[in-house]
Amino acid sequence: MAKPIAGPEIERLIQLLAKLPGLGPRSARRATLHLVKRKDQLLAPLAEAMDRARANVLVCSNCGNIDTRDPCTICSDATRDQSTVVVVEDVSDLWALERAKALNAAYHVLGGVLSPLEGVGPEDLTIRRLVERVAEGGISEVIVAVNATVEGQTTAHYLIDQLAGFDLKITRLAHGVPVGGELDYLDEGTLSAAMRARTAF
Amino acid sequence: MAKPIAGPEIERLIQLLAKLPGLGPRSARRATLHLVKRKDQLLAPLAEAMDRARANVLVCSNCGNIDTRDPCTICSDATRDQSTVVVVEDVSDLWALERAKALNAAYHVLGGVLSPLEGVGPEDLTIRRLVERVAEGGISEVIVAVNATVEGQTTAHYLIDQLAGFDLKITRLAHGVPVGGELDYLDEGTLSAAMRARTAF
Ligand SMILES: [Zn+2]
Ligand SMILES: [Zn+2]
Repeated sequence: MAKPIAGPEIERLIQLLAKLPGLGPRSARRATLHLVKRKDQLLAPLAEAMDRARANVLVCSNCGNIDTRDPCTICSDATRDQSTVVVVEDVSDLWALERAKALNAAYHVLGGVLSPLEGVGPEDLTIRRLVERVAEGGISEVIVAVNATVEGQTTAHYLIDQLAGFDLKITRLAHGVPVGGELDYLDEGTLSAAMRARTAF
Repeated sequence: MAKPIAGPEIERLIQLLAKLPGLGPRSARRATLHLVKRKDQLLAPLAEAMDRARANVLVCSNCGNIDTRDPCTICSDATRDQSTVVVVEDVSDLWALERAKALNAAYHVLGGVLSPLEGVGPEDLTIRRLVERVAEGGISEVIVAVNATVEGQTTAHYLIDQLAGFDLKITRLAHGVPVGGELDYLDEGTLSAAMRARTAF
């Protein structure tokens, strides 16, 4: 923009909104205009919701999930099978599995993957706490749901080593063809895995 | 979502962010996670920026633009040609023209278009103020930059009628082929207009 077209408060709002994933500079302008036209219905409630989230968000000391209570909503949910723990890299993975209603279980959020290149070691993740949870008892299955990347698999193997001494079922997500996925677009590793794991009609 | 996976503060933030244009429920979740992981760097500044915008945003009493000062930044800009007024439907059109650096002029934001079907009459728009501005003097050209829709054109004709008594140049945007536009995809009206308005190389 060659010249300022609005006061600094509006320009700042555009700049900050543009930092959200999914919003570029252009859509940040549209969102800002949408907000300032709806001061009472949307802008004020959103400012307040952000302020409350800022003041209340914390990391669950049990599982590493992000919530506004500790233990988190999921760890406190007695209707979940707390004996099954799904280990994920990030809270976004937890949310994705919950959206899919994949399982009514507990979680453990690692906070990343082991990456010697990026200097991420076991102490940078919540691995020690996972081992503690298992040692405390009451967990019968750990589902290692890390991403199917090299670093994810390295992390999975490290976890399996750490959990080797316990009487525990350790599983991982099945590889296969995504639902609705076209074979043509899938990589060879996925196709081979799907073929090996084929099931009867 | 079958079960709550986070406290009400986080769920509320997701719900409100999902109301922004360009963000659906899924991207609102991603944005929320992005924010709560960056409490100090992004969430707190954004909450504050929204609060400031909410407290300070107003509609320019001269031109109908949205800003945090009245008269607005554009009306107060002495380096702009304030004798040329570009009439637009919405602030978003003003921003689009400014992004394009189309002209270094003043604006007048109508706040919509005439629409008998939706009960929008002249008094619902800032038409009276536009006539006042012209009557106050100092304006030599009004560029009617409303959208090329039926209602936009109805509004344009109404404006031209209202401004007929003044010594004033009234112009409109040229129709033509969008820069980078493929002829194949353009409607016949645009193509005919572009042909009639053809210029020499
Ligand atoms: Zn938890
Ligand atoms: Zn103004």
